Amino acid sequence: MHAADPTPATGAARKGRVLTGYRPTGPLHLGHWAGNIENMLRLQDERYDCFYFIADWHMLTTHYDRVDELAAWTQGLVLDWLAAGLDPERVTIYRQSDIPEVAEMALVFGMTTPLGWLERVPSFKERLRDMDERHSANFGLLGYPVLQAVDITIVKGELVPVGQDQVAHLELTREIVRRFNALYGDVLLEPQPLLSESPTIPGSDGRKMSKSLDNYIGVRDEPDEIRKRVKSFLTDPQKVRRGDPGRPEVCPVFALHSRFSPGDLERIDTQCRTGELGCVDCKTILADHLIETFAAYRDRRRELERQSGLVLDVLEAGLAKARPVAQETLATVRAAMRFG
Amino acid sequence: MHAADPTPATGAARKGRVLTGYRPTGPLHLGHWAGNIENMLRLQDERYDCFYFIADWHMLTTHYDRVDELAAWTQGLVLDWLAAGLDPERVTIYRQSDIPEVAEMALVFGMTTPLGWLERVPSFKERLRDMDERHSANFGLLGYPVLQAVDITIVKGELVPVGQDQVAHLELTREIVRRFNALYGDVLLEPQPLLSESPTIPGSDGRKMSKSLDNYIGVRDEPDEIRKRVKSFLTDPQKVRRGDPGRPEVCPVFALHSRFSPGDLERIDTQCRTGELGCVDCKTILADHLIETFAAYRDRRRELERQSGLVLDVLEAGLAKARPVAQETLATVRAAMRFG
Repeated sequence: MHAADPTPATGAARKGRVLTGYRPTGPLHLGHWAGNIENMLRLQDERYDCFYFIADWHMLTTHYDRVDELAAWTQGLVLDWLAAGLDPERVTIYRQSDIPEVAEMALVFGMTTPLGWLERVPSFKERLRDMDERHSANFGLLGYPVLQAVDITIVKGELVPVGQDQVAHLELTREIVRRFNALYGDVLLEPQPLLSESPTIPGSDGRKMSKSLDNYIGVRDEPDEIRKRVKSFLTDPQKVRRGDPGRPEVCPVFALHSRFSPGDLERIDTQCRTGELGCVDCKTILADHLIETFAAYRDRRRELERQSGLVLDVLEAGLAKARPVAQETLATVRAAMRFG
Repeated sequence: MHAADPTPATGAARKGRVLTGYRPTGPLHLGHWAGNIENMLRLQDERYDCFYFIADWHMLTTHYDRVDELAAWTQGLVLDWLAAGLDPERVTIYRQSDIPEVAEMALVFGMTTPLGWLERVPSFKERLRDMDERHSANFGLLGYPVLQAVDITIVKGELVPVGQDQVAHLELTREIVRRFNALYGDVLLEPQPLLSESPTIPGSDGRKMSKSLDNYIGVRDEPDEIRKRVKSFLTDPQKVRRGDPGRPEVCPVFALHSRFSPGDLERIDTQCRTGELGCVDCKTILADHLIETFAAYRDRRRELERQSGLVLDVLEAGLAKARPVAQETLATVRAAMRFG
C-alpha cells in the first residue's frame, strides 16, 4: 500500500526522496567515484529529493577501534562530496549519529527482525571473511541490515539507488519494513530500488578496488602518486612487450580507461589488440586522463578546506531538514507500538 | 579500577546503587514475589540506592506481538510494586523506554560486543526452546545481554541482585563493560553481583512457576481462585490418601509452605511424614496462609488503583532522577568514542 511513487499525482514536478549513506572509513578512491559519487551527482542534477548521510554508526561495525580517525574521515568525506559537486542547497547532507531517533528505532526494529534473516545475508558472510584476525564479528555487524532499514524508513526514503547485484539486499530492508507494518499497522513507507549502474572498478591487482587491499588510486592523490599507482597496475599477462597483441577485456588498466578515457577508448582498444600500443604508454595515457579529470576536483577541495566551519554548517543545515522527519516517524512508530 | 564499592570512604552512610529491571508481561505470581519482590523490599529497607525499572523494551524480545497489553501491564506492575511496599520516596522507579539514551548506548555497545559471546548465553538457548511455534527468535532476543549491560551502566549501577545461578549471566555484562573500557578508556562502572537468595518456586505441575505454563498462583488472585489453584497442585505421588507417609522434600505444596507458612512448617513436615496430615487438609492450610498473607496487599492495591494519575506521577519522578544520570553517561561515552 505504501509503495513509493516517485512522481505522485499531487505535484507532478516532485521526484522521490532518495536515500544513500556512506561510511566514513578513509579517503575516496576511483572505485567510490565511479560506483557512487557519479550516481549521487546525477540524482542531484535530475532533481530527486536526495538525502545523503554520513553513516558513522555503521562505520563502527568494522572500525570500532579506529574512532580516533572518525572526525577527520567525516570532515574529509563531506569535503569530498562538496568538491565533487554536491550542492547542500539542493541535497540534504547529514550525519547519522546526530539523529538519536535512529538508535531508538533500530532497537525496536531489532525486536521484530528474525535472526535467521540476518544470518543468511551474503554480505555478512563476506564481511566476516574480509575481517582481519584481530577482529571478531560483533553484534552490530550482524544487525547492519536492521540499522540500514531504519536509515531509509526513518526519513521516509522512497528510493534507494542500487546496482543490479544489490537488489536482493534492499529486498531484506523491504521485508523488515513489511513485517513491521504487518505487526503494527501500515506505519512505514516501503522503499523501492532505483536501479543504477554501479560498475566494479578493478584495482592494481585486478581485484575490486579497495582501500584495505591497497590496490587503489585515490581521487585526492597528487599527480606523481597517480602515475606511480597506475604504473603498479597489472595488465594482460599474455602481452609481455609492445608488439604483443593484448586483450583489453581482461586488463584492469583498460577497465579504468573505459570509465575515465571515454574519448580515447576506441583507439586504445584497437591499438592494444594490434600490439601497436605498449602497456607503458597505455598507462601514461590513463595517468594523464586521471590527473586531468581530477585536477579541478583537487583545486576545489583545497579551496573548500580553507573555509573554516563549512562542514559543520552543512551538517547542521542537513540535520535541520532530516531530524524533524525522523522525529515524526519515530512518534508514529511509538504510537503504533503503544509506547509512552 | 572501576570496581564498585558499595560503601566508599566518602560518606560512610551511602550504600551502593542497586539495579533491577522487570519485564511487564502480565500480573505477578508467587514465583515473582518470592524471587524478586521480597528482595526489592529488603534492599529498600536496607537503604541501598535502589533503581527499579520497567523493562518494556526487553518485553519486546518475546512479546512484540502483544503491545496492546503493554500499557495495562506497565500500569499493573507499578501498582504491584507500590502495593507490595516499594516507596517511590526511597527508591527510583522508572520506565526503560522513557530514556532514549538507553537505545543509543545499546547501538554502540552492540558494535563492541562479539557475536560469539551472545550466541553462547545459556538463557538465550533456553528462551529459544520456550518460545511457542508462532515466534521465531529475533535479533533483539540475541542482544538481550547488550541491552542489559546498558540498563546497568547507563545509570551507573554498582550492584545487581542475582541468585547464585545468575552470577555467570552478570559476568557477561561485566565482560561487555570491560571490553568497552579497554577500547575507549576507563569510562564505565563495572557492576558487581549482590548475591541474593532467589528461590525457584514450583507451580502446580512441579515445574518452575510460570505464567506461560499456567501453573501459577497470582498475588492478586481472589480467595476463591487461590483455593482452586492450590487444589490443582501435585503432591508426593507416593502419598495417595491420608495415612500414607509423605515426603515433603518432593512436594510442590510443601515448597510453598516453606516460603509462606513459616510458623506452621515444622508441624506440617512432621504430620506429612507420619501420614497424620492428608494432602487435602495440607492444601487448605496453604490456601488459608496465602489468602491471609496477601489480603493486606490486595486491599492496598485496590486503594492505589483508585488514585488516578498515581503511576504516571511515580514514573515521572523516577525519570527525573534517572535520566540526567543516563544523559551524563552517554555524553561521556560519546566523547570517549569521538562522536559529535
